[in-house]
Amino acid sequence: MTEEWVDMEISLQPVGVVRSAIKTPLLGAGNSDLELRERLEKIRAQHRQLKDLVSELVIDPRLEGILDGIEAFSHIIVLYWPHLVAPERRKLRRVHPMGRKDLPVQGIFATRSPARPNPVLVSTVPLMGRAGNILRVQSLEAVDGSPIIDIKPYVDVYHVVENPRFPEWLLQIQRDLADAADKTL
Amino acid sequence: MTEEWVDMEISLQPVGVVRSAIKTPLLGAGNSDLELRERLEKIRAQHRQLKDLVSELVIDPRLEGILDGIEAFSHIIVLYWPHLVAPERRKLRRVHPMGRKDLPVQGIFATRSPARPNPVLVSTVPLMGRAGNILRVQSLEAVDGSPIIDIKPYVDVYHVVENPRFPEWLLQIQRDLADAADKTL
Repeated sequence: MTEEWVDMEISLQPVGVVRSAIKTPLLGAGNSDLELRERLEKIRAQHRQLKDLVSELVIDPRLEGILDGIEAFSHIIVLYWPHLVAPERRKLRRVHPMGRKDLPVQGIFATRSPARPNPVLVSTVPLMGRAGNILRVQSLEAVDGSPIIDIKPYVDVYHVVENPRFPEWLLQIQRDLADAADKTL
Repeated sequence: MTEEWVDMEISLQPVGVVRSAIKTPLLGAGNSDLELRERLEKIRAQHRQLKDLVSELVIDPRLEGILDGIEAFSHIIVLYWPHLVAPERRKLRRVHPMGRKDLPVQGIFATRSPARPNPVLVSTVPLMGRAGNILRVQSLEAVDGSPIIDIKPYVDVYHVVENPRFPEWLLQIQRDLADAADKTL
C-alpha cells in the first residue's frame, strides 16, 4: 500500500483559548507513584470540583459571526490542545490506564490519555451562555490557556450509541470511581 | 486580554489513512444549486448507502502497539482530516445548514460543516474488527484517502448528554430526512 501520510503535515491555528480555574493538568497517567487508594481519592475530589466548574472559551474576535446561532444548542463539543503535555509524551504507544499499574497495559488508542501522537482532546460540555466572542461552559477539564481547535454543536443522533460494549478494565475504573459517577456530563 | 493564539501553530502528522468506497465528498453545503426536493432525495440515498458501508482505517505500522486492546470496545471515535475541502473554504464564517437556502444562516461553529477553520472531523462508528494495524469500521462518512488524526474509544459517560436541546432548523432537517432516520449511528 502507498504511504502518502509519511510526510504529510497538517497545520492548525487555534481559534481561541480556554480560560479556566484549572491551572495544572488533572491527575492522569502521570503521578503513577501514588498509592491506589490515595490516587482514587484525588480523582474523586477532582471530579467533584469539575462538576460545577465554569470555564470560558474566548474565541478569536477576528472570526466574527462564526458563533452565530450556537446559543440554541444546550451542549457543545470542544476540541482543544493540551498544551502542557510534553512533546516526548506524544511518542508513547501503551500505558496503564490512568497510570494504574493494577490494570493491564493498553494501546494509547484504546485509552483517553492526553499523551497521544496527535493530542486533540474532545469534550462534550453544557453551554451555559454566550457574551459576544466568549462562551461559558461547564465541567470542561481543559487547563487554563489551552488553545481551542474547534467548536461543534452536540447533536445526539451522531454521538449516541446503542448498547455500547467496554473492556473490563474500564468497568473496573468506573466501579472504583462510583461515588463520583454523578458527574453528569 | 492577551492574544497568545495569534501566532501559534499546531502541527499534526497523520497516524493513518482511511480506505473507503466513498471517493468524493457526500452532499453538503456545496452543490447549493440543487432544488430542495432533489437534494433531500440524494441525501437520503447517501444515508442508506452509508449505513452498511464498511471502511478500513489503516494505521501507520510504525505505531506498533498503539491499537492494543481496542477490540474490547464496540465503538470508536475517529478524528480525521477532510483533505478535499479547499483551503479557502476554511475561511467561511457562516453557512446555510446543508446548503439549504430555506434555512437561516448559521455560524460555522453552530454547524457540522466540514468547511471550518480547523476541519478536524469527529465520527463515532461501530468497530467491526481488527487485523493487525487495520481497523474495520461501519458507516464512516470519510472520503477515501482521508488522513486519520486520532482514534479514541467511545465511552458513554463522556459522550452522552441528558435532555439536549437543539435549534429549530436542525429539527427541521431531521424531519425532512426522517425516512433516513434509521441510520443507527
